[in-house]
Amino acid sequence: MDIQVGIIMGSKSDLPIMAEAAQALEELGVGYELTVVSAHRTPERMVEYATSARERGIKVIIAGAGGAAHLPGMVASMTSLPVIGVPIKSSNSIDGWDSVLSILQMPGGIPVATVALNGAKNAGILAASIIGAFDAQVGKNLDQFKEGLKKKVIESAEELEAKGWKRFLSE
Amino acid sequence: MDIQVGIIMGSKSDLPIMAEAAQALEELGVGYELTVVSAHRTPERMVEYATSARERGIKVIIAGAGGAAHLPGMVASMTSLPVIGVPIKSSNSIDGWDSVLSILQMPGGIPVATVALNGAKNAGILAASIIGAFDAQVGKNLDQFKEGLKKKVIESAEELEAKGWKRFLSE
Amino acid sequence: MDIQVGIIMGSKSDLPIMAEAAQALEELGVGYELTVVSAHRTPERMVEYATSARERGIKVIIAGAGGAAHLPGMVASMTSLPVIGVPIKSSNSIDGWDSVLSILQMPGGIPVATVALNGAKNAGILAASIIGAFDAQVGKNLDQFKEGLKKKVIESAEELEAKGWKRFLSE
Amino acid sequence: MDIQVGIIMGSKSDLPIMAEAAQALEELGVGYELTVVSAHRTPERMVEYATSARERGIKVIIAGAGGAAHLPGMVASMTSLPVIGVPIKSSNSIDGWDSVLSILQMPGGIPVATVALNGAKNAGILAASIIGAFDAQVGKNLDQFKEGLKKKVIESAEELEAKGWKRFLSE
Amino acid sequence: MDIQVGIIMGSKSDLPIMAEAAQALEELGVGYELTVVSAHRTPERMVEYATSARERGIKVIIAGAGGAAHLPGMVASMTSLPVIGVPIKSSNSIDGWDSVLSILQMPGGIPVATVALNGAKNAGILAASIIGAFDAQVGKNLDQFKEGLKKKVIESAEELEAKGWKRFLSE
Amino acid sequence: MDIQVGIIMGSKSDLPIMAEAAQALEELGVGYELTVVSAHRTPERMVEYATSARERGIKVIIAGAGGAAHLPGMVASMTSLPVIGVPIKSSNSIDGWDSVLSILQMPGGIPVATVALNGAKNAGILAASIIGAFDAQVGKNLDQFKEGLKKKVIESAEELEAKGWKRFLSE
Amino acid sequence: MDIQVGIIMGSKSDLPIMAEAAQALEELGVGYELTVVSAHRTPERMVEYATSARERGIKVIIAGAGGAAHLPGMVASMTSLPVIGVPIKSSNSIDGWDSVLSILQMPGGIPVATVALNGAKNAGILAASIIGAFDAQVGKNLDQFKEGLKKKVIESAEELEAKGWKRFLSE
Amino acid sequence: MDIQVGIIMGSKSDLPIMAEAAQALEELGVGYELTVVSAHRTPERMVEYATSARERGIKVIIAGAGGAAHLPGMVASMTSLPVIGVPIKSSNSIDGWDSVLSILQMPGGIPVATVALNGAKNAGILAASIIGAFDAQVGKNLDQFKEGLKKKVIESAEELEAKGWKRFLSE
Repeated sequence: MDIQVGIIMGSKSDLPIMAEAAQALEELGVGYELTVVSAHRTPERMVEYATSARERGIKVIIAGAGGAAHLPGMVASMTSLPVIGVPIKSSNSIDGWDSVLSILQMPGGIPVATVALNGAKNAGILAASIIGAFDAQVGKNLDQFKEGLKKKVIESAEELEAKGWKRFLSE
Repeated sequence: MDIQVGIIMGSKSDLPIMAEAAQALEELGVGYELTVVSAHRTPERMVEYATSARERGIKVIIAGAGGAAHLPGMVASMTSLPVIGVPIKSSNSIDGWDSVLSILQMPGGIPVATVALNGAKNAGILAASIIGAFDAQVGKNLDQFKEGLKKKVIESAEELEAKGWKRFLSE
Repeated sequence: MDIQVGIIMGSKSDLPIMAEAAQALEELGVGYELTVVSAHRTPERMVEYATSARERGIKVIIAGAGGAAHLPGMVASMTSLPVIGVPIKSSNSIDGWDSVLSILQMPGGIPVATVALNGAKNAGILAASIIGAFDAQVGKNLDQFKEGLKKKVIESAEELEAKGWKRFLSE
Repeated sequence: MDIQVGIIMGSKSDLPIMAEAAQALEELGVGYELTVVSAHRTPERMVEYATSARERGIKVIIAGAGGAAHLPGMVASMTSLPVIGVPIKSSNSIDGWDSVLSILQMPGGIPVATVALNGAKNAGILAASIIGAFDAQVGKNLDQFKEGLKKKVIESAEELEAKGWKRFLSE
Repeated sequence: MDIQVGIIMGSKSDLPIMAEAAQALEELGVGYELTVVSAHRTPERMVEYATSARERGIKVIIAGAGGAAHLPGMVASMTSLPVIGVPIKSSNSIDGWDSVLSILQMPGGIPVATVALNGAKNAGILAASIIGAFDAQVGKNLDQFKEGLKKKVIESAEELEAKGWKRFLSE
Repeated sequence: MDIQVGIIMGSKSDLPIMAEAAQALEELGVGYELTVVSAHRTPERMVEYATSARERGIKVIIAGAGGAAHLPGMVASMTSLPVIGVPIKSSNSIDGWDSVLSILQMPGGIPVATVALNGAKNAGILAASIIGAFDAQVGKNLDQFKEGLKKKVIESAEELEAKGWKRFLSE
Repeated sequence: MDIQVGIIMGSKSDLPIMAEAAQALEELGVGYELTVVSAHRTPERMVEYATSARERGIKVIIAGAGGAAHLPGMVASMTSLPVIGVPIKSSNSIDGWDSVLSILQMPGGIPVATVALNGAKNAGILAASIIGAFDAQVGKNLDQFKEGLKKKVIESAEELEAKGWKRFLSE
Repeated sequence: MDIQVGIIMGSKSDLPIMAEAAQALEELGVGYELTVVSAHRTPERMVEYATSARERGIKVIIAGAGGAAHLPGMVASMTSLPVIGVPIKSSNSIDGWDSVLSILQMPGGIPVATVALNGAKNAGILAASIIGAFDAQVGKNLDQFKEGLKKKVIESAEELEAKGWKRFLSE
């Protein structure tokens, strides 16, 4: 499977969150690579990663970071590929607002496709939907994934209606 | 030019903001369509738009809305295409937080690629970067666009350094 | 007892909160039904629920959801019945602000009667007060319920005054 | 036409906002009364209003206030009728957060049906939907109102699609 | 000792916080009474308490409440005595903002002397400083209390400087 | 008339707001003095003011400041008199949050009686209520002032009810 | 005069704010240079600027930017010099929170000395105080500057006390 | 080693955070002293500390405090040395916003170099960078420290790439 999505994060402590992007891409049949690149600690490595991604065949970059999160925006400034940003609620974050705003509020000209706080799973699905817009097989995988979500809700509903909420809660 | 991007907004009052997405796509050589679809006032029209977009050849949907902005997320729930959400600071908005949060904080499984408050221009560029990941010409257009941004900054810098800030400000 | 209130929620994980609405309705003698309907995962089911509620005899719909909470507003857009929204503080919520704002800040024309964060109990009481505005028995039940609240406060006060706060706290 | 809705506000300076509730009720064929009652300046008048409303035939109370907005919650504590609260962004408000939170976040037992900041129009529609749950004519009026909203959106869409956004904006 | 300060709170669950006001008043030699009065659950009791306080010899009222905290402001509306408000971070509070804003942001004409979130201890000291402005003995007690605070800081500083921070932290 | 209240502010630009405190005290028959004292620009002057106030006969200090507003808290740390803090929304303030929080959130031991953002009028009334707790004449003045507030509301109500809202608004 | 401070900003539209830093440095007798460097539009130029600053004799860098403001933090990641960050409230900013948080909340290891929103004047003074810690003349200039601030406050106070606030305000 | 940095904090309970500044300075070879000074509890001690620091050879002061944190700003008002402020999230803080804003938002003329919430480590590094701007050895130590940060990221990246994320997470 070709590697089409690059997942990067500012620190290995972000891995438990960012692994959900990788997991989602595996389930949706999209090849990816995953590594650590820090905007502030390894700026040259970040430049190298961002400027070479397109020629290495990457179609979408997913970048996660916490606090004053500059990685997604800086990578976006150095590539013409779409960059998805995952705001991470790190330990000293002010309730996550810092990472959300420093990824979302990019200036005109340099967009970052921002997902929810800690929303790495959705970043993976979004990357797949980008691939899937041009790849019918991935498109189908996404449709099946959505069917699965729906089925689970309907099963919950049926179970809850059958048992009643008191029995459902007490089990 | 094929229509590859669909731009929709909740109300015609959103047009002055959302037109910037159309403008950006024109500059980047990407075909688009643009119309009004309201999640709350025309729910059936929204369902129709979202579920038919893929088969009509659309690759990316850009949806803008203000306040409790449900249009981007609801459209995302009904298509496997990538959906870009533009939070709009409408007249009764609480400083824009309502539209930002009701677009950004989507639940697991249904991502929306959120851009900055009133960031429709960036939504257009992001849509182009998605098309450009698979279309070399659009990719080149993006590279040229970035060159243009850079050139303007360098010209500003040269002018400012030559004149000094006092003369620069007084002109 | 006729079913007059429909309680729906976006996910079964919302049940521990939303059950408090059911509990309140039982205490106030109002018939209800309760199930899972997701705006984003089962949009057709939501349309079906919202558009058929009135003819099935439902008078009030209570809808709870977390994060970018679109269920209450979308249901309100598809029925002329009053819809009560319960913002739920879900696990990745930004302190509950996302669900509060995406339920409360509905655009002109489509109101949602919003209650406090996690305030499902109050949603149940509010639904009963709506029924009770037209049903004298339910109105009386509400008056008794209020009497009960008052009595408990007065008993607390008497106990506290009799014991003094030091003994009260140490018990 | 019987008076079924009581609209009250903390100060006459709130009237330009609160008149939108009256306007909506007129359009929807629901009788109302409207006056000034201040929780902090006329507490006895508030008690009198709240405790007599039900026997005077009122079915729903709409109360608007700004800043530390206690009127809706205090009225709700003294009646079994449903109370709709309208947070008003008054001149010294901290961006409206004070009125939103002091109306929305009521303690368990005393709900207020809160609408958007300055959302008096929606308060009127919500009151009508409560009446309309039990009065078929008002229910029909609401359906027609919704049809009107839908029609306007579709006309906007058609005009915009016909003219194109450039001509539309320049007119 | 005459009772000069009345401490009231919306619910007995507020006692662990509000007891700190009583504790401070005891240390500063000021007589007080303490009980439960709920604005929403016992409005008549609140009216009775507020309107009779002055003639019963009370000089200052301290009122604590959480969420949409109306008790301090409503009491202030019904007495000419100074009212100190203590915002309490209750279980469903949105980070305490609701109680802070619904106590602090009173409209012109009806002030509440607001202290920090959960700041009941400071409410007690503030009440004592009001008494102490007219009572030389209480004024002296406050000066001694301040001396005590100062002495503790200086002892901390001396201990820390003598031991060094590493030993200080490891003990 | 004896001077019993000292009004200070960080900058002469705060005077248009802080003059409302002086105005209120005049109306309520309480003597005051008013000057500029800056915590950051004239720290020695602040120390002198705070430490000499009590012996000069002052009973209450009102201190207003904007941004990182340290004046009220620093004065409170140097006197046993009650200090009322007025948060001012200065030009570079972040919506007033900075002044509110840096006055309100004082540490245990050093209270500041905080009023609403720009609430200098209420600061004056609060100071009068402190004086009035011990001075029957000022207490009566406050009762009359409250009567005046009430009368104005009732007149508004009567005028509005007589004219109807449409005529009232159009005049 | 040697150039010891480098002032950079993300866009020429930031100049009206950032010029206040230059102005302050001139008044305090510190040599500076000033230009435009954009993190997102000219990343190579930023790298060049940051990595050569120390060897060019610069002692302190002042960097201003708005929105998702990455310039100060990225420059700090590439130099061992102290970097002062000025959050600028740009046109689409969410009340300035985005620039404040994306400059302030830097991760461990890479500090940015952040000043108030739009606080470029203070950035200049802070840079001078850094130079002045090692340069007695600049230290003296700062002392004189502080004397000037003090004098102005005392003159305001004297004028206000002499005229009284009514005359002062009416002039 | 000469003492060049003074670290002070409002309370000994701040030591676990503030010790990280001391730790960083030790690693970077900069001499420091550390003690407790409270703006509110020991104002005279604060004046003494701030006004004598420069003549005692201190070059930079680091001041940490929580809640309405006045220590950094008040110290800055009494010295021409650079002052670094560390906002501390104390137990009753409103999510840290109070300490951040009361340190950051200083008025024009009196800057405080603010670092992230609980960012004492960064305060130490920032102080070292100020010393290092004039001291080549400390400058080199900082360069080595940055190399160390970089090396750790690269090692993480290599380990993660070698093992794959699943094995990495499960270890």
